[in-house]
Amino acid sequence: MSKKVDLTTAVKIMNAAMKKAQEIGVPENIAVVDEGNNLVAFFRMDGAWLGSISIALNKAYTSRAFDMSTKELGAMSQPGKPLFGIQASNDGRLIIFGGGMPLKDGETVVGAIGVSGGTVDQDEEVAAAGIEVF
Amino acid sequence: MSKKVDLTTAVKIMNAAMKKAQEIGVPENIAVVDEGNNLVAFFRMDGAWLGSISIALNKAYTSRAFDMSTKELGAMSQPGKPLFGIQASNDGRLIIFGGGMPLKDGETVVGAIGVSGGTVDQDEEVAAAGIEVF
Amino acid sequence: MSKKVDLTTAVKIMNAAMKKAQEIGVPENIAVVDEGNNLVAFFRMDGAWLGSISIALNKAYTSRAFDMSTKELGAMSQPGKPLFGIQASNDGRLIIFGGGMPLKDGETVVGAIGVSGGTVDQDEEVAAAGIEVF
Amino acid sequence: MSKKVDLTTAVKIMNAAMKKAQEIGVPENIAVVDEGNNLVAFFRMDGAWLGSISIALNKAYTSRAFDMSTKELGAMSQPGKPLFGIQASNDGRLIIFGGGMPLKDGETVVGAIGVSGGTVDQDEEVAAAGIEVF
Repeated sequence: MSKKVDLTTAVKIMNAAMKKAQEIGVPENIAVVDEGNNLVAFFRMDGAWLGSISIALNKAYTSRAFDMSTKELGAMSQPGKPLFGIQASNDGRLIIFGGGMPLKDGETVVGAIGVSGGTVDQDEEVAAAGIEVF
Repeated sequence: MSKKVDLTTAVKIMNAAMKKAQEIGVPENIAVVDEGNNLVAFFRMDGAWLGSISIALNKAYTSRAFDMSTKELGAMSQPGKPLFGIQASNDGRLIIFGGGMPLKDGETVVGAIGVSGGTVDQDEEVAAAGIEVF
Repeated sequence: MSKKVDLTTAVKIMNAAMKKAQEIGVPENIAVVDEGNNLVAFFRMDGAWLGSISIALNKAYTSRAFDMSTKELGAMSQPGKPLFGIQASNDGRLIIFGGGMPLKDGETVVGAIGVSGGTVDQDEEVAAAGIEVF
Repeated sequence: MSKKVDLTTAVKIMNAAMKKAQEIGVPENIAVVDEGNNLVAFFRMDGAWLGSISIALNKAYTSRAFDMSTKELGAMSQPGKPLFGIQASNDGRLIIFGGGMPLKDGETVVGAIGVSGGTVDQDEEVAAAGIEVF
């Protein structure tokens, strides 16, 4: 049976991510999108950066948009790299640093999670904890 | 002690709203904002209209922006009424039909809920169920 | 000597407007622009509607943009009237209901005040109190 | 008692900042936002750059959005640094050079000031003078 990012699944992913965020002591914004790259659920943990609301939403969006982590896209988007300038596309919604990761059913991307509120490493650790329960 | 729309509270409100939505059989998008009009949490129930994602978010925004329900604001914004044209303000984020309602601590508005996915009457019934548990 | 909307003058206008707002018991957002239609000063009174921040700014902008009150512009912009649709211009910054009024040096418009937070009548009363001290 | 950025407080902060700006002879744009990252007050000193109106507003916004100075955010956002590309987020409102600083109640950020009109060093000196009286 194929895996699907419905609301119950999204909340399960977000709760696992939040648990990790609490463990490492960083309040995070967490967003999950589905196969159609449409928002399913969002949580702002108490005290999380306000400026990271849109970044979490857009990390999830970016990751599903290109079926890779935002860190991988970021590596290709540095000055001198093949995708430098990609950020100007997609109505300014692309985030090119870590914290967005695809949700996969086997090899197929069926959604994504976006986390923002800590360092990029922390955001990735929290996103990975969410993916683990998918 | 003053009431505050933290994440735990927002999820409690959204769960009560979702329960009502399930009772009346309408999949809804539900958003909650806090006192500063910043997003705290969002749920899209399975099968809810995709175009209602931004409407739910913006109903919550609109209701906190003017400390009244979106239905009340809508009544003042019809052609010939005092606020006709208001929806062009606030970067196009204002929704002027029902489904957004303020969350109050006594007389003070400390947040809002926005619901979109059904008829306006259904959206208001679902939003009211969320407010009831605040 | 010609009159000019410098910062000292803008603050004087805004203080007079605030005094009126306090008298009638309505927290208002108040903005003043100069001859070049650039923002000089802005105050949000405690408890004023958050959604009225941009409306106050844009009422001042609109009034200087067309050298008339936003109420007058609004009358011309209703369905069936000559300027219906004008709101889609000026990057969505035009407000077509009362509360924005020009600041004049004789017949010449040299700035404007915008007030938002109460009823349209209250906003106009507060704006007029500001203009009186210019 | 917790500190709050109400209008009286914001004007006090801005007056202290203006005094410093006058001392060093640079006309500045100065903005203050509150805990919810909503604008409380703005002053453009006579002769201050028009292009710095939105920069001052957005420096205050940026600083509250990430609870740090815009200088600190800027250091993390250079090419090759972890947050390179962040300024495309938040609808283009982020400023990644100095002049925005958080207003703190102990360790909690409850608002921010943004200053633009001089060199980055001057803007920071003026912002710091505002923060000192909070």
